[in-house]
Amino acid sequence: MSDKPRHITRDVLPEPTLRRLPWYLAYVKMLDSKHEDYVSSTQIAKRLNVDASQIAKDLSFLNIKGKTRIGYEVHPLKKELTEFLGFKHRHNAFLVGTGSLGSALMQDLGLMQYGLNIVAGFDINPEIVGKNVGDIPIYDIKELAARQRSSGVSIAIIAVPFENAQEVADYLVESNIKAIWNFTPYRIKVPRNIVLQNTSIYSDLAIMYNRMESSWNNIKNTPK
Amino acid sequence: MSDKPRHITRDVLPEPTLRRLPWYLAYVKMLDSKHEDYVSSTQIAKRLNVDASQIAKDLSFLNIKGKTRIGYEVHPLKKELTEFLGFKHRHNAFLVGTGSLGSALMQDLGLMQYGLNIVAGFDINPEIVGKNVGDIPIYDIKELAARQRSSGVSIAIIAVPFENAQEVADYLVESNIKAIWNFTPYRIKVPRNIVLQNTSIYSDLAIMYNRMESSWNNIKNTPK
Repeated sequence: MSDKPRHITRDVLPEPTLRRLPWYLAYVKMLDSKHEDYVSSTQIAKRLNVDASQIAKDLSFLNIKGKTRIGYEVHPLKKELTEFLGFKHRHNAFLVGTGSLGSALMQDLGLMQYGLNIVAGFDINPEIVGKNVGDIPIYDIKELAARQRSSGVSIAIIAVPFENAQEVADYLVESNIKAIWNFTPYRIKVPRNIVLQNTSIYSDLAIMYNRMESSWNNIKNTPK
Repeated sequence: MSDKPRHITRDVLPEPTLRRLPWYLAYVKMLDSKHEDYVSSTQIAKRLNVDASQIAKDLSFLNIKGKTRIGYEVHPLKKELTEFLGFKHRHNAFLVGTGSLGSALMQDLGLMQYGLNIVAGFDINPEIVGKNVGDIPIYDIKELAARQRSSGVSIAIIAVPFENAQEVADYLVESNIKAIWNFTPYRIKVPRNIVLQNTSIYSDLAIMYNRMESSWNNIKNTPK
């Protein structure tokens, strides 16, 4: 038996770096599709409005070196970013709450492209249970623990009404789920050893509304 | 003609406050559905893992006062938060890119509940143009400028492949769109007077993957 870890061990990256890496990846993918060979951090900086020295620092976490004056090779940089961000591996996941947002996520091909493979949906609604969304079967939520045991899936997405978010999270933790991606605006609590990622598109919406008002009020109040 | 602004004029809120307000709303909605009458900031603090003094400070931006020892009245607090966050008004929006994620957003009833009403989708694919997603018609992207003029819609959602994100954004700005909600991981550039909100669910996914690895490596490396 080998003692080698399956993934490269690395330090916890600063979250701001981790948020910027997918921007670089998107840009580098675009350059790759245009058959560009090299990209410099100055070029990325100009395009993405991030400081060039910051970009060099962010990319120093990766197993790739730029060349003076020429920059990074586009194709290897794309591969390394994809690998580094975990998008190349296939991560199986359950999804709980196959309503409007939930079934939307089950149909989003983007998630699959970024390595997330939703293998089953779960719901409490007897009219939905037994049906499919695309190719993905929907099971009764009560079956989740047993299906976790037989499949070893360790990621679950929560897309239930927010009133039930905590209850579902507790059940997922009991069912041996190790990482929870919470799409409800409810701030669930989980034990420390559980990875929790919150994505609240409605919070982003509130921020947009607020900026719209501020910006329009400013225009109104600006002397001409 | 009245000079009164349609919305209450207010300062630009700190973004962290704005990110927390929807959490309070979700919690308060849940209390309201359970017919609770009062909630204290200590109670919210305990539940949401936010400092009680921070909560009192956040809520001080609202037009509502808590009572000593008793706290806030649940129902008025819910109404005020909903109003304040802009979720009560109806904001019409266009959506560009009716692929997997785009049509998912068009079907998400949650957006409507939070005040965003997608009135039309736009695409370049002639096989999709002319069809509907739910009740929402899909038009040729070339019609967007004209449809903006006739409808006055000022918000647009970008859900196209990231390679086309900038091009679409430029076209939206030319077409008199004032606020852009970008769901691609591409970091588009817009003029200063345009409100830009980025939501990259794939960046959140990368962060989750990274934390999963870190947390699992830590477990492996912890001496028993």
